[in-house]
Amino acid sequence: MESMTFVLFGATGDLAKRKIFPALYNLFLDEKIPPSISIIGSGIEEMSDIDFQNGVRQSVETFSRRLINNHSKIEDFISSFCYKALDATNNKDYEDLLDLVQRREEELGIPENRMFYLSVAPDFFDLIALNIKESGLGSTKGWKRLIIEKPFGHDLTSAQDLNEKLSQAFKEDEIYRIDHYLGKSMVQNLEALEFANPILQSLWNNQHIANVQITASETVGVEKRADYYDQAGAIRDMVQNHMLQLVMMTAMHLPKKLSSHEIRDEKRKVMESLRSIKKEDVGLHIIRGQYDAGEIHGQPVVKYTDEPKIDSSSQNDTFVAARLWIDNSFWNGVPFYIRTGKRMKDKSTRIVIEFKNYLKDLYENQDETVEPNLLIIEINPHENVALQLNSKNPLKNGKIEPVRVEFAADQKGAPEAYERLIFDALTGDSTFFAHWKEVELAWEWIQPILEAFEENLLPLYLYSSGSYGPDEANHLLDEDGFKWWLDEEYVERKN
Amino acid sequence: MESMTFVLFGATGDLAKRKIFPALYNLFLDEKIPPSISIIGSGIEEMSDIDFQNGVRQSVETFSRRLINNHSKIEDFISSFCYKALDATNNKDYEDLLDLVQRREEELGIPENRMFYLSVAPDFFDLIALNIKESGLGSTKGWKRLIIEKPFGHDLTSAQDLNEKLSQAFKEDEIYRIDHYLGKSMVQNLEALEFANPILQSLWNNQHIANVQITASETVGVEKRADYYDQAGAIRDMVQNHMLQLVMMTAMHLPKKLSSHEIRDEKRKVMESLRSIKKEDVGLHIIRGQYDAGEIHGQPVVKYTDEPKIDSSSQNDTFVAARLWIDNSFWNGVPFYIRTGKRMKDKSTRIVIEFKNYLKDLYENQDETVEPNLLIIEINPHENVALQLNSKNPLKNGKIEPVRVEFAADQKGAPEAYERLIFDALTGDSTFFAHWKEVELAWEWIQPILEAFEENLLPLYLYSSGSYGPDEANHLLDEDGFKWWLDEEYVERKN
Repeated sequence: MESMTFVLFGATGDLAKRKIFPALYNLFLDEKIPPSISIIGSGIEEMSDIDFQNGVRQSVETFSRRLINNHSKIEDFISSFCYKALDATNNKDYEDLLDLVQRREEELGIPENRMFYLSVAPDFFDLIALNIKESGLGSTKGWKRLIIEKPFGHDLTSAQDLNEKLSQAFKEDEIYRIDHYLGKSMVQNLEALEFANPILQSLWNNQHIANVQITASETVGVEKRADYYDQAGAIRDMVQNHMLQLVMMTAMHLPKKLSSHEIRDEKRKVMESLRSIKKEDVGLHIIRGQYDAGEIHGQPVVKYTDEPKIDSSSQNDTFVAARLWIDNSFWNGVPFYIRTGKRMKDKSTRIVIEFKNYLKDLYENQDETVEPNLLIIEINPHENVALQLNSKNPLKNGKIEPVRVEFAADQKGAPEAYERLIFDALTGDSTFFAHWKEVELAWEWIQPILEAFEENLLPLYLYSSGSYGPDEANHLLDEDGFKWWLDEEYVERKN
Repeated sequence: MESMTFVLFGATGDLAKRKIFPALYNLFLDEKIPPSISIIGSGIEEMSDIDFQNGVRQSVETFSRRLINNHSKIEDFISSFCYKALDATNNKDYEDLLDLVQRREEELGIPENRMFYLSVAPDFFDLIALNIKESGLGSTKGWKRLIIEKPFGHDLTSAQDLNEKLSQAFKEDEIYRIDHYLGKSMVQNLEALEFANPILQSLWNNQHIANVQITASETVGVEKRADYYDQAGAIRDMVQNHMLQLVMMTAMHLPKKLSSHEIRDEKRKVMESLRSIKKEDVGLHIIRGQYDAGEIHGQPVVKYTDEPKIDSSSQNDTFVAARLWIDNSFWNGVPFYIRTGKRMKDKSTRIVIEFKNYLKDLYENQDETVEPNLLIIEINPHENVALQLNSKNPLKNGKIEPVRVEFAADQKGAPEAYERLIFDALTGDSTFFAHWKEVELAWEWIQPILEAFEENLLPLYLYSSGSYGPDEANHLLDEDGFKWWLDEEYVERKN
């Protein structure tokens, strides 16, 4: 791996402390960062290099998945770090930053490869990018790359505007938009499951699949994110990015060869085929909800509008369920159901693929009910792949019953999403980052939904905390003769 | 279930003691035999009812999978038994047997439903069947059925001859030919796996399957069966019946509905499509072997021709491997490899279905080797269904590796093959018995092989005890670009 400079904007922030420093440390332990690297943190406050390094050490001590058991290693690691206070609005500060970058490049003999990581409030994305360009930070003889956190805009126009500005400083293939769901190992595994298994690949179409169900449920409420969340809602916080990324990863079609470019191309094609919903029809395919008071794990919890800093008249969505149609030859007629919410009964991110049950009638005469085959990809909190088959139970006179064949990925010692994503960015592999076209198409699809929400063109259903969301989310599947799989089971497993 | 008389010929034999009495007892415990049943054992020696009943009790005590923990139950059970000495060649004895049957029918108010179970040497099959007819035992107002053990003939002509004689006394649908492999729960489950799982059914053809591998290996040698085995060889003892039954169960196609008749029809069609091998071509598709000295589980064992009662010049086959082709539209181009032998490295009966690996090249540029998908159906000693998929290993930078999703059937408390088969016969369900057409077609296919063996038209390869058989059995697959799966793995699992 090439030596490089890694400039982290927002180096005193929460994400840096909890995720980025620990990720870099673990990459360092695995020799997955270059031996010669200059890591420069910047933030609004003044701080000495020593204090910054101590902060990095403390973050690693607190949040790293692996303990520090070698004193000289951690010292070696933090010696790569230095700090530069920077007011994002002050041009002069960027010039000083450039001086520091160049001085370190010279000292360490590092070529002009520069990674810029924007772990800052979204308001600063365009400003910092522009200043990187204008200060000369971005004029390198080597490569330059930009890692940018979410949110990428708050609607179609603002996203396009942001991208327009970023693209003045960075080319699309220099921009790495983080969607941390794409860093989860089981999400990355979707590609292998679909493409490295002929038997699954053969079944991966509307001839064999009845419907696809993607759930991302949380038990937590709004927590300390009221300011952001009450403006964003589940639709921006989860659906526009993570949920649609899962749809793309599930529905993408086998490319001719497997490269970052081809995979992102296939994902874009999914978004292009996603049937748009007219503003006035949103209520037919989208269910929005807001959590009411209830119980989570036996503890009473308040309703959303009683949460601190949430206006008591807030109409914000904490739950969204949707029925999507992908109008291409592979997925015609196969509904994709997605569902995400806070304060739900259980924490689970999973994809369930229900196969068509065309053999059902074969046994019906014989008093046998045959459940459909399911492929269950559990992403969080466990990582599992399971296939539900039907098999005779020798203890019940050979009665046919569903059984699960499954494997649980060994999660112990596996790198975290941020390690994977930062490593990919360091090596220039953009497979698991969101391409601008994906982001833009997602906003295009979301836009009429945002407007319908804004104009209250559809009901906001209250659902009890600790439930599976509003009943209407079940009716959405009922209408097509389906049901959400595994809800009860997940609760049973917990108890 | 209807009340009946159950006449067991060979009631003092080993099979009765080890399998049949314990099976009846366990069926009794599960209330799977009629409450009113008259069980009459017969054998050449004289014995009182009391002595016979004591023998039954002792057999149950020694061999039943469930312990006797209720004294009155076992007494209740054995009170159904009585004994009649019978010389199979003596017509008068059958008349006396009829008297006893009728007396008991009258005493117990049992209608004239009569099951005759021939657990005797094959020489007596036709004789007893004929006498059942001539004595009037078979002239019932209710139903009559014949259960018959293997071997069913020792070549095509003798099997046809035997069937001709049996059919003078019993109609085909009254004859239940036991192939105890068909009583194994995982063999019975093949039907459900293939027919109750749309995703497997969709893959169950030459578009998706590269080859099928059926192994039945034993670690034991000829044991005490020298007289029989040295005449039969693996080809008659295993291939003509059990192995071809497994081929039929695997290759049969989905019928319009699932009935005993339809399933046996589909099995027959498989045999009709089985490409016959000309006597002079046997060496191209069949490997025969005989075990040499070697080691089994660390203990030295002698070669076959040094076994007690085996002639030192015996050319008998203790190992057979074969490549079969099923010439129909579902299986054109898919080789079925079968293999069975004594004194092999491990005891295992299993079916491995290797799927075509058409996605292999997708990854080849990226230094990834992608193993084919496998469906593994383990019949013995464990009962498992496993699917080998490819998945990214998060601990190895997402390297694609084969993983197994599997389920192990809960064998504890499951009925044994003989319980299942006797129960089916009692209820008149002939699904898992060998139909005459299956048996005849199997002999037709085997006949040229028998002749080629007889005339030594192909080599007899020696293989070390404790090996996987002769290397030539591997070459058979090599020729087609395949290999036997799982050999090493099974040994590893053991160690």
